[in-house]
Amino acid sequence: MTSPTSPRRLRELIAAGRWNGPTAGVLEGHQQANLAIVPQALAFDFLLFCNRNPKPCPVLAVTEPGDPVVRLGSTTADLRHTLPRYRVWQRGTLVAEPTDIADYWRSDAVGFLLGCSHTWEGALRDAGVPVPRAAESAAPPVYVTNRPTRPAGRLSGPLVVSMRALPGHLVARAVEVTARYPTGHGAPIHIGDPGELGIADVHQPDFGPPPKLEPGTVPVFWACGVTPQLVLPAAEAEYVITHFAGHMFVFDHHVDADPTATCEPAN
Amino acid sequence: MTSPTSPRRLRELIAAGRWNGPTAGVLEGHQQANLAIVPQALAFDFLLFCNRNPKPCPVLAVTEPGDPVVRLGSTTADLRHTLPRYRVWQRGTLVAEPTDIADYWRSDAVGFLLGCSHTWEGALRDAGVPVPRAAESAAPPVYVTNRPTRPAGRLSGPLVVSMRALPGHLVARAVEVTARYPTGHGAPIHIGDPGELGIADVHQPDFGPPPKLEPGTVPVFWACGVTPQLVLPAAEAEYVITHFAGHMFVFDHHVDADPTATCEPAN
Repeated sequence: MTSPTSPRRLRELIAAGRWNGPTAGVLEGHQQANLAIVPQALAFDFLLFCNRNPKPCPVLAVTEPGDPVVRLGSTTADLRHTLPRYRVWQRGTLVAEPTDIADYWRSDAVGFLLGCSHTWEGALRDAGVPVPRAAESAAPPVYVTNRPTRPAGRLSGPLVVSMRALPGHLVARAVEVTARYPTGHGAPIHIGDPGELGIADVHQPDFGPPPKLEPGTVPVFWACGVTPQLVLPAAEAEYVITHFAGHMFVFDHHVDADPTATCEPAN
Repeated sequence: MTSPTSPRRLRELIAAGRWNGPTAGVLEGHQQANLAIVPQALAFDFLLFCNRNPKPCPVLAVTEPGDPVVRLGSTTADLRHTLPRYRVWQRGTLVAEPTDIADYWRSDAVGFLLGCSHTWEGALRDAGVPVPRAAESAAPPVYVTNRPTRPAGRLSGPLVVSMRALPGHLVARAVEVTARYPTGHGAPIHIGDPGELGIADVHQPDFGPPPKLEPGTVPVFWACGVTPQLVLPAAEAEYVITHFAGHMFVFDHHVDADPTATCEPAN
């Protein structure tokens, strides 16, 4: 696949059917986002759920009901065509993993773009914290915890976390760096004993590959964007559409130029 | 009026009709909040408006539709009785300023508690920035600007700001301190020329007393919680209820112990 020169060009390639691979590790430094599309009837509950659980679900942008176009800063893009791959649930059952959702879009659909850990992975590497480049093969292990999210209306479920094992002398630095990015998943939610999160065997993650725990490393756990992918289908809404793991929406802006953090009028 | 020893005691005094004065300057350090109550049909638009305009409208807590009880951290309180004074609008017209809203509560009402500048006024004073103690007589001047908020559904309108004139050598410190409190109104949105915000005469605020601008001081402008009190009635919803200026909801928790900033389960 042609290597894109800008987020806009990447979105054009995706919309033209010429890019269907992961966006992880692509155009590093640009804000990438998880996607969740829900019926308008569930939109208040989900927005409230995100507000109550900002670490797993940091809201970057929400579309108007029925309008597939997201507008944030200089980014204007049609959510039906500008992610490389999606997952579609109907009444809680996964029914498709298409590369375009024109056929699944509904007139009452509301799209949510949520920050993801790609937001700070580059910053961690720049700070000398050895985080593997996020290709699908290097995705972090992901665990369902015993910690409940704060429920909202019909939505509830466990907090999901990702884990990175870091050398003890780099743990504090990793906390400092990631804490600067609330539009990623922010600072870790737990450091150390996986058992405290109800993780019986850290070598058997619920998603992703088993971790290598080198001597001298400490497990560091961050809230994970998989959380809504468990919570939303469990509500058995008529439909829910999300991104496919690693296949994200890419905004024009840099992670350090968050347009949502200002009082400037939206473009 | 008896001086309350705790937020819970203050809320009890208010509910018993024994406290109807401002909460500004009372129990300093505890999180105080602006209130907005809207019909469920407007709740998604308003929550989205708050998300898109987090500086004027930092969300602390949202109630379930129809349930007047707010629960956050150790705070459990009935919004109908636990603010000293309210303002009630019907279809855009102010109809009452009661001390209790039992008669105005509806089965579809959703309550929003939003952070306010009292969150950081104590911290500013502790840092040596001379902010007058917020009694009604010392409220800051408030201006409607030419800067639009980011609209959401039916909700739109101008950003409202408060102004404090500070000595030049303390402006940076004021920015540093208030930036730490996104559950207040965060860092200033403008420093210097009021004309840049469309304020024709800084000596004639839209609300509050005219400011004294001493030589050597710089006007510093923060997003203001009056913003939704203009935006919501303009939508001509069937009803909107807010706090009365200076008469806020007081949470149990300290401003530095924000329960919404953690992944802990809600109590």
